Amino acid sequence: MTQIKVVKNILDANNRIAIENRKLFDEKNIFVINLMSSPGAGKTSFLMKTIPELKKKYKVGVIEGDIQNTYDAEQISKLNVPVVQINTGGACHIDGNMVKEALPDLPLDEIDILIVENVGNLVCPAEFNIGEDLKIMMLSVTEGDDKPLKYPLMFHVSNAMIINKIDLLPYIDFNMEKAINDALKINQKLSIFKVSCKTGEGLSDFINWLYEKI
Amino acid sequence: MTQIKVVKNILDANNRIAIENRKLFDEKNIFVINLMSSPGAGKTSFLMKTIPELKKKYKVGVIEGDIQNTYDAEQISKLNVPVVQINTGGACHIDGNMVKEALPDLPLDEIDILIVENVGNLVCPAEFNIGEDLKIMMLSVTEGDDKPLKYPLMFHVSNAMIINKIDLLPYIDFNMEKAINDALKINQKLSIFKVSCKTGEGLSDFINWLYEKI
Repeated sequence: MTQIKVVKNILDANNRIAIENRKLFDEKNIFVINLMSSPGAGKTSFLMKTIPELKKKYKVGVIEGDIQNTYDAEQISKLNVPVVQINTGGACHIDGNMVKEALPDLPLDEIDILIVENVGNLVCPAEFNIGEDLKIMMLSVTEGDDKPLKYPLMFHVSNAMIINKIDLLPYIDFNMEKAINDALKINQKLSIFKVSCKTGEGLSDFINWLYEKI
Repeated sequence: MTQIKVVKNILDANNRIAIENRKLFDEKNIFVINLMSSPGAGKTSFLMKTIPELKKKYKVGVIEGDIQNTYDAEQISKLNVPVVQINTGGACHIDGNMVKEALPDLPLDEIDILIVENVGNLVCPAEFNIGEDLKIMMLSVTEGDDKPLKYPLMFHVSNAMIINKIDLLPYIDFNMEKAINDALKINQKLSIFKVSCKTGEGLSDFINWLYEKI
């Protein structure tokens, strides 16, 4: 019982910090996206393809969350956008406080859209608000069509599901209809996009949707 | 600081329970495998292919770990082996106590090899011992060759890395040499197997290795 109480306290404390972050984002007029997925679903590839488009209309900044190292941040920095690396040092998700601590290292007055690439994990990141406007989750088709029912919280809390790697559909068993129907059963408000970050297919639909949200 | 202390206490308590599990496994002469990976790397498909082989020499039992539902356990039960489902109810890993609680529901006197399929997560399961003989992790090639350096603990604690979905190599960018070299830098004792659970390629090498370990 003690253990459960501690977890609840951590989540309460996190929500208080997320609300503080939210206030700052509102003051600075920054739209914040929390991007989540399993390891290797394609979050960084997605940013490498979409940020050049977003940059045509908005000033973009990125917080990269990784357990250790700066590989993804190095990739993103090639796009000439401000990027800060959070190394969680073992922790399996980004929480509100990690974002709060990273913000002073970003030029907030020069950012319209801040994208937080979370640690690759289909479970824990879903539990932690960071003060974001949108939670966007990616599911790669190679992970299988059973993921919505097996990891429901992630699908429940997200505003959009981006189904990635559709270029691989001819080579795998993935029932698109089942994946989409199961996800919508968990969250009927989920916006769904089928994309290939390799070929670029479907990304413009997502970008148009995002522009409406901003 | 309080938060860190709590986590340490949880891990200490877990290790005590893992040692208790270990004693029971020794008494019953059961060889225990903790099977871990990202969501959708192919753990259940791997068991569906390997258990029929293992059954020729050993009596096999399975503990299925999932956040909720029993889909994978239903699959495994088709192999006519005893299987128990642990539903973690949101938790992102299997710990020693969950295994302890599941054991009374298994016919331990009739099991030589117990396989625990962990929750799909490349981070947290690596932190929790369950009293196992071997930790085996799967990496699917579709997750990318950067995973060892980005999620090092999982590679560090595992005895074997099974690289799955090699049938998809012609269609993706995956540098096998880099993935293997990076994994060996983290853990030079790691045994490595390249397999396709779809075609069955490479599985016999793994099974022969496992027989030597048992």
